[in-house]
Parts: sequence; structure tokens; C-alpha cells
Amino acid sequence: MLVKSQIKYIQTLGDKKHRDKDGVFIAEGPKLIKELLEEKNVPLVSLFALSDWVESHHSKIPSKQVTEISESELARISFLTTPNEVLGIFRKPVFAEMNPKGKFSLVLDNLQDPGNLGTIVRIADWFGTEYIICSEDSVDVFNPKVVQASMGSVSRVQTLYTSIPAFLARHQDIPVYASVLDGENIFTMNRLNEGMIIIGNESRGIGKELLKISRHKITIPKRGRAESLNAAIAAGIILSQFLMSGSSPRSLPE
Amino acid sequence: MLVKSQIKYIQTLGDKKHRDKDGVFIAEGPKLIKELLEEKNVPLVSLFALSDWVESHHSKIPSKQVTEISESELARISFLTTPNEVLGIFRKPVFAEMNPKGKFSLVLDNLQDPGNLGTIVRIADWFGTEYIICSEDSVDVFNPKVVQASMGSVSRVQTLYTSIPAFLARHQDIPVYASVLDGENIFTMNRLNEGMIIIGNESRGIGKELLKISRHKITIPKRGRAESLNAAIAAGIILSQFLMSGSSPRSLPE
Repeated sequence: MLVKSQIKYIQTLGDKKHRDKDGVFIAEGPKLIKELLEEKNVPLVSLFALSDWVESHHSKIPSKQVTEISESELARISFLTTPNEVLGIFRKPVFAEMNPKGKFSLVLDNLQDPGNLGTIVRIADWFGTEYIICSEDSVDVFNPKVVQASMGSVSRVQTLYTSIPAFLARHQDIPVYASVLDGENIFTMNRLNEGMIIIGNESRGIGKELLKISRHKITIPKRGRAESLNAAIAAGIILSQFLMSGSSPRSLPE
Repeated sequence: MLVKSQIKYIQTLGDKKHRDKDGVFIAEGPKLIKELLEEKNVPLVSLFALSDWVESHHSKIPSKQVTEISESELARISFLTTPNEVLGIFRKPVFAEMNPKGKFSLVLDNLQDPGNLGTIVRIADWFGTEYIICSEDSVDVFNPKVVQASMGSVSRVQTLYTSIPAFLARHQDIPVYASVLDGENIFTMNRLNEGMIIIGNESRGIGKELLKISRHKITIPKRGRAESLNAAIAAGIILSQFLMSGSSPRSLPE
């Protein structure tokens, strides 16, 4: 059973300011909840679940942290179009201070789409990229839609919301690569050991001021007719090329 | 002004069977509509737009194909969460018969997410990959959400819904690469001139029967902890590696 104040509280966690105040975030669905329960970095605050889920998991979770609810109650608190058995409130992960030297980091300038950010966090986690630096006007990484799209990777990849120019100024010894439509062909570049890759806003790309201070512009060359690539796809291809592929310079096929 | 029968008709185009019957599909928003109006391959059937849009475009479109509507009317016919000025009905593109010999094609086994399929169509269009073969249980490429995510690329990339095993059997001279979690490292493979890349369902991967007949299994190696990569991200990375990168065999960094 849920009381009104609980419903209201969970609904407020759709807003960043409420998540920030309590240092928590929402995750949903058996698969994602299972994964987060195994992550020491994101302690469970409380779970709200249908009876079937509670029955098959009660041995693993302290009962005072689980509230059994009805389908209609779940529908009221869920942020999903199709509510999925269980919703959890978790503490945000705590990480040591960022140290991007000798590593690869992603830098996101005004990324707006929660699905894109979640997918990028998941890509970073796949390739072992520890850090994502977001401009302060980017979508919040603990937005419920971002958490879902990340498939739990928000618990393992460290994000920082800050002024990108100021961040780059503090790390001038690390090469910066800005993803644009008319830069150097990434497939002719060498594999790299460190760097910061800037990915821009979904429709406007990287902001003018930031472009000006980006030393190196890079591009995924086009062979067909699409006007652009999705931001998450660009991040995936560039990261894979820089981290996993790219040996000596090679020329493009005709 | 919209009459009731028009509203009802447009709403039915959310269903594949109605789209198939009339050979049409829906697209929305000024940017996408502008792009499709320039594509000879997808003739316009009719447009429904707010007065501002009509005013700034009336010289370019025969007036009998445009209906000026109110915001509340647009909200009733729109498939978007946030309706966006204009909705168009277009004829599906007509393509010549597929001839995958000497080319790269994507093969999608039971892909379900419209956003993923649309993004994959856009990637294919970016890299000049002409063909996408979908299993009959995959999401329809003319689903309004797929069309939106493709950013208009559905007008340029040819899709075929068919039995994948039967399709592969008809093209035994073309190498097949199945994307799995434990195959050959794609970053040690050569750039390829032809092939069919199979991408599986978002949660279950490639079906058992299809896996059995796939001669070559390939993998994007993992360096971090995410359990999997999004299907569209996998398609983008594999396509970029096979088409644009990948020269002589190289080893992975430690």
C-alpha cells in the first residue's frame, strides 16, 4: 500500500532539484533493478514492487526497504509508458575526483535528449571510458529516462556538470577533439591513448565559443546522403575508432 | 479545417495495415517535411499545417494538397508528444529490385524499438548502405516513430521484410556476419567490399536458427562493464569499421 505522500514524493523525483536535494534517483524494471542492487556504488533507498516480484526477491532485500503495491499504484508512480513490475529509489553514486590525464573522456555540449545521453553513458561503460563532462545546460544524467536508457551504466560512469571551457582550461595538456561535419577523417587517425571528445547538441552541434577553443576538429566521413548522424551514434563510432581501431594513417575507399 | 473523417483516417495510419493498404506513411515537423518534399521518391499526398507554416510555404506546394489547421486539430492527428507545425502524408518510396551482390547490407532479426530502427536507417543512409533486410516480425519501417527517428532516410534506404533464412539462402555467395557477444573482434578484421551484417533483437539477440546458419560471428570487444550495446550503436560501429576502417589485422590494446 502506498500513502498519498509517498506517491507525491516519488513523482517529485522526476525533477532534478528534488533528486539533487535528496541525492537520489529512480530506476525501473526487474532487469535494471537487479543490476543496480548488485552495485555497491548506488545503495538502495526503497523499492516499490508488485506482489510477484516481491515474492521472488524477498529473501535478497531487507523487507523494510520493500513496499508491495498494486498495478494501479505502480502506474501512478512509474515514469515509464509501460510500468514494469518494480520501481526503486537509489542513492546517487559517489566517485573519487576526476583525473582525466592519460584517459579518454567524453564532453557533451548541451545534449538534450535523455535517450541519447543514456545511450552515450552505456557506450562509455562498454568501452571503459570513465568520465563524461556535460555542459550545465545538458539534460540531467539522473533523469529517469536517462537512467533507463543507460541500462544501469549511470552507476559506473562518472559525470560532471560544469563549464566546458573552464574544464578544458584546467586540462590544457590533454588533446581535445571536436566532432563536426568538416574535420579530419577519424578513420585516417591513429589510435589514441588520451583525449577529450566533444559531441554537440542534437540539432545545433557544438556551440561557437567552444568550437573556437577546440584545437582539433574531427569527422566521421559520409558516403551516403543523410544530413547528420545521431549524437550517440557519433560518440560510439568515434570512441570505437580512437580506442579500439585506428593504427597507421590509411586512405578512404573511393 | 479538418473534417471528422480526415482525423479518423490519419489516426488509422498509425497502423501498418492501413499504411500498407494505401501505400502511404506519415511524417511530421518542418525540418523532416522540407527534406521529404525535396525527395522525388516519396510523392506528397497531403499536408496539414498551422497557418504560419502555410504562409511561408504556400508558393512551393499546390494549395489543393495543403489544409490549414488549428493547433488543437494538429494535436488530434499528431503522433508526436509535442506536435510540430506540420504533418504530411507521403507515398511510400518505390525502389528497383534489391541486388546485394558487391554491396553491404544490414539484416535485422526481430528488431522491436522504432527509435532503434529509425536510427539504423539513418546510419545506413550516412554510410551509403542501400539495403536493410528485416525479419517479418520486426517493427515496420513506416511506423511514424521510425520515420521521425530516420530523419527522412526512409525515403532513400530500401527495406525488405522477408524470411531472413530464405533471403540468405538466395544469396549464398555473399558473406554473412552475425553480431554476437563472443565472436571475432571486428577491429582485427579487414575492410570488406561486400557482406550482410545481422543485428539481433534488443534483448534476446539473434534467434537460434539464424545463428546456426550464420557462417561468421563478430563482436565489438568490451573494455568496460556494460552488459551490452544498443542495437543501433552496434550497427553504427560495425558498419563504420567494415566500410571505412579496418585494414590489416591488428591487435587490441591491453
